[in-house]
This record gives sequence, structure tokens and C-alpha cells, in this order.
Amino acid sequence: MTVGEAIPDLATKLLRGDRSATARALTLVENGEGPADAILEAIFPHTGKAHRVGVTGPPGSGKSTLVGGLARLLRAEGVIVGVIAVDPSSPFTGGALLGDRIRMIGPSPDDGLFIRSMASRGNPGGLAAATADAVDVLDAFGAGCVIVETVGAGQAEVDVVSLADTVCLVLTPESGDSIQAMKAGLMEIADIYVANKADRPGADRLVHEIEASKKATRTEAAPVITSVATRGEGLEDLRAAIERHRKDQIEGAGWRERRRQATRRRIASIVEKNLSQEIWVGDRRGLLDEMTDRVLDGEETPRKAAKKVLQGS
Amino acid sequence: MTVGEAIPDLATKLLRGDRSATARALTLVENGEGPADAILEAIFPHTGKAHRVGVTGPPGSGKSTLVGGLARLLRAEGVIVGVIAVDPSSPFTGGALLGDRIRMIGPSPDDGLFIRSMASRGNPGGLAAATADAVDVLDAFGAGCVIVETVGAGQAEVDVVSLADTVCLVLTPESGDSIQAMKAGLMEIADIYVANKADRPGADRLVHEIEASKKATRTEAAPVITSVATRGEGLEDLRAAIERHRKDQIEGAGWRERRRQATRRRIASIVEKNLSQEIWVGDRRGLLDEMTDRVLDGEETPRKAAKKVLQGS
Repeated sequence: MTVGEAIPDLATKLLRGDRSATARALTLVENGEGPADAILEAIFPHTGKAHRVGVTGPPGSGKSTLVGGLARLLRAEGVIVGVIAVDPSSPFTGGALLGDRIRMIGPSPDDGLFIRSMASRGNPGGLAAATADAVDVLDAFGAGCVIVETVGAGQAEVDVVSLADTVCLVLTPESGDSIQAMKAGLMEIADIYVANKADRPGADRLVHEIEASKKATRTEAAPVITSVATRGEGLEDLRAAIERHRKDQIEGAGWRERRRQATRRRIASIVEKNLSQEIWVGDRRGLLDEMTDRVLDGEETPRKAAKKVLQGS
Repeated sequence: MTVGEAIPDLATKLLRGDRSATARALTLVENGEGPADAILEAIFPHTGKAHRVGVTGPPGSGKSTLVGGLARLLRAEGVIVGVIAVDPSSPFTGGALLGDRIRMIGPSPDDGLFIRSMASRGNPGGLAAATADAVDVLDAFGAGCVIVETVGAGQAEVDVVSLADTVCLVLTPESGDSIQAMKAGLMEIADIYVANKADRPGADRLVHEIEASKKATRTEAAPVITSVATRGEGLEDLRAAIERHRKDQIEGAGWRERRRQATRRRIASIVEKNLSQEIWVGDRRGLLDEMTDRVLDGEETPRKAAKKVLQGS
């Protein structure tokens, strides 16, 4: 296929809600292949409408079950839903995880639900950028809500969900003892806390600890929803809290400011990625080789060598 | 404490094998705090002696159990062992994971074994750099072998273990169906394959599939060890394979070339990290703000905006 002809075609089909065109566009965008730029360009005017919901939390907190239940609720309301499950720690390109998700959400074909999994690609900075691109594709496809779910809650995951309009942080009584040990920056991103597996011992303490930590993390406005996702309990409360956050943001100045920050980070990460590719040309590459030998010979520490490469001397 | 006085002191104690000085040095290095540079500088001439062994593989492949068993074997030989367990997907700063490891390796105090866990810090590029620094600290402490173990096998994990002299890739019969689906770049890094949980159905097929994939991944020289880590089976074979790889490398040209590549990547990642911090000054920051607004107003796509920020116009 020639790019000049096929890409506008693909974009047109995608914008009409064609699933197979959407799937192909997602693959191109995920791989960052040449035509990806042209597709993103063509669909860009049709993006920005979907509500972007991020769901993160420690491994084992029940995020997938929660997202599955949430997607079902939204579908029952007639909302077209996109789900992007991001796993930076997986070496697999998607098949297995995707199968699990489809089983979880339900086996019946549903034209209003689009699920995609994304594994680590190139570099983790690239993963956040690729996820933002994939959200744009599902947005252009017609999704009213795109849920971005992560497997863990490390830095790569936080980078990925920080593009969302509404971020849900899922915790469990098991993480209760450890809220103090959570790394800086995780609790701060929550718009909504979910205390999942609330039928287990320690649930009250978890809620109490979340409430107690709100001031320090400047998340006083974030509600705490208790849920037992495996039994569907608390899902409607979560759905309502997400909708309330969206409304509050749109009615206040929050929405534009939030998107501004996300867009800013998105542009910055593309700049940084491109820059790190462009830096290794000509003299600098030679200097890197020279400095590598000096470190190997014990004449220079790695950090001093890096400083010299950066200064170009 | 004043840095000028205390750091040489800390470094001296560390080099004498003082555990609490080593622990403090690791914390400074992990946090990338100011004194870290001075410590790394002071210990640098005393590094490069330890054998650096990386252990990676998909989540659930039994890496921790394998590393625990390997550490016990090495200790029985009288080798001083360092273990760094790296979890880029964890939001916790180390406590819980570390407790698990200590239980796993054995409760008795052992001055010749140093275990440390590292979670995601700042950014994943920074995690690989911080791990390399931590390996240097344990090397200077006197470890004859430093094992770097990852929780998953995503890009961040591959970056982390690619600093090792010997990389073990742990797979299980469960990953058998999926070797085809593994992302490019994972199989290529193996010096030794471990087919763990070899008592489960599908183990023969796994070994067969690894062998069949060797040519495409240019890992013909990598042996395939079968193991059942939970029963201690195959650990001595693995220990022997690691030692054989070390000897082959030292006797051939492999060792220096390997360390050259690792050192090169290490310097490059520090350069890229520093660069991405330095780029956002003066005009570029203003340009980023301007471009953010243009993207929000639909006048520019994120990629085109990034290009303009990079070009400075």
C-alpha cells in the first residue's frame, strides 16, 4: 500500500467507527512506524472528546476486575468504551493479556467496546507517548470514555496514567500497612481513591489511613470509594465519583488546566525522546567511545565521563 | 554530618566490609543524593572485581527462588554475595519486598550476604543507572558475585540486567506457548537459559522451543539449564554454567568487550538523563508553554509541536 493513498482511507474508516481500521491504526501507532504520524495528524481534529480515566495501583489490587466492571456499567449506559491495558513489565506483545481481558469483560461481541493491551516498547518514556497516541485513536474511533489501566504502579505506570482527566488509585487492605512506604508521587496523583477488597480484614484501617494521608498529599478533594470488585460492590459508587469529577472539572477551571498539564508533559516527553536519539551523532559518539575506554582503564568515573561527553570536551 | 569529613570515612568503612556503612552508601546512591557522587568517586578504584550476574524473566517464572538457591550455593563456596532485587513496577520503597527476600534466603545472620531491593526512582533510565551504582557499592564492599534480579522482563528490566557480565533468562513451561510472542530484544540478551518449573507439563516443549529459537536470536552459545528451583534441582548446573561463562569470557576477548558495552550504555544513560534535565531552560520552556496552548487549541499536533520545540522555533 502506498502511504499517500491508504492513510487518509484508514483514518476515514476509523473515524466512521470501523473496528478493523481502528485495530490497524493502533498497531501502527504502538509500533511508532512511519505512517503513525500521518494517521495521528489526520485524526487529531477529531480528538479531545473522550473522558480519559486512568486506573493504577500496586500489583494484585484488583484493577482488571474493577475496570471490567466499570466498562460493563458504562456500556449499559450506552457509552462507547475503550480500554487500554498497559504492562511495562511484560515481555509479551499483548496476546495473552488481551485474552484474559476479553474473558473478564465478557465473551459476547460488542461493537461498542474496544480493548487493547500494550507492553513495553522501545523505552518507557516511549510507552507513555504511545499510550497517549492510542487514546487519541480510540477517541477518534468514537469512544466516550477511554480507560487506561496499568498492571503495577511504578514510575512508568504513573507516567502513563498522568495523561488522564481522572485518575483512580486502587489500594487494598494488604497495602494498608505500607501506605507509609509508598514512594513519593503515587498518592499525589489520585483524584479518586478506591479501597478495593473491602471485605477483607483491615479495610477500615485502610480507609482511615488514606483519609489521614490526604492533607500531606494535597488530595483533600479526592473521595474514597470502598469496593469488592469481584462481587460488583461499589462499582456504581465509583462510576458516580468518576462522573462527578468530570463535571466538577468541566464546570470549574480544572479541565483545561488538567489537559494543559497533560499535553505539556506529552510534548516534553516526545522532545526528550527525540533529543536522546539526536544527541549521538559525530563528535559525541567518538567522545563516548573515548570516555568508555578511560572508564574501563580506571582513569575516569562514569559520572565524570558523562559530564565530559555532555560538554563535548 | 559535613560531607567533606564524613564521606571519605563512609567509603573507608565500606571498603573494610562494614555492613552499616554499606547500607548507608546504598541508600545515598539509590536516592541519587549529593554525597553519592563523592562516594562513587572514592570507591571507583576498588570496583570491577565482582562477577555481575543478571537474572530476568517474565513475572512468576520463579526468579526469586532461583536467586535464593544460587546465593546459598555461592555462600557455601565461601563467596561473598550481593543481591539487588529490582522492581520497576512497585510503588513501595523496599521494605516489604526486602522482608520476603530475607525470609527466602534464610533467617540466620550471614555477614557474607548483602540483600537490597530497589524500586522505581525518578525515571526508569535512572533506575538502570542507580542499579549500576549499587553494584559498584557491593563490589567495593567485597562481593565476589553480585546478582541483579528483576521482577518482570519489560524494557526497564532489560536495561537493568544488560549491565551484567552474565545474563540468565528464566522461562517456564507456561511461557512456552508464548516464546513467539515475546518482544524483540528479550531472548537476545540471554547468556544462559533456565527452563524452570521443569516438573510441569510442557517442559520438553519449552526446551525444544528455546533451542529452535537460538539461531534467530544469535544465542547459539547459550546453554539451556532445566531446574525446579523450589526443590533445589538444577541449581548446581546453573552455578556451573555461570562459572563456565565467566571463564570463557575471561579467557576469550569477551569480558572486556562486554564490560565496554555495559560501560558505554551506562555513560550514555547518564548523559541522556542529564541532558533531559538541562534542556528545559529559558527559551525552550517558554516555547513549550506556547506550543502546549497551540495543541490545546487544535492548531498543532503534539508531534509537530515537539519538533518545533526541539528546533527552537
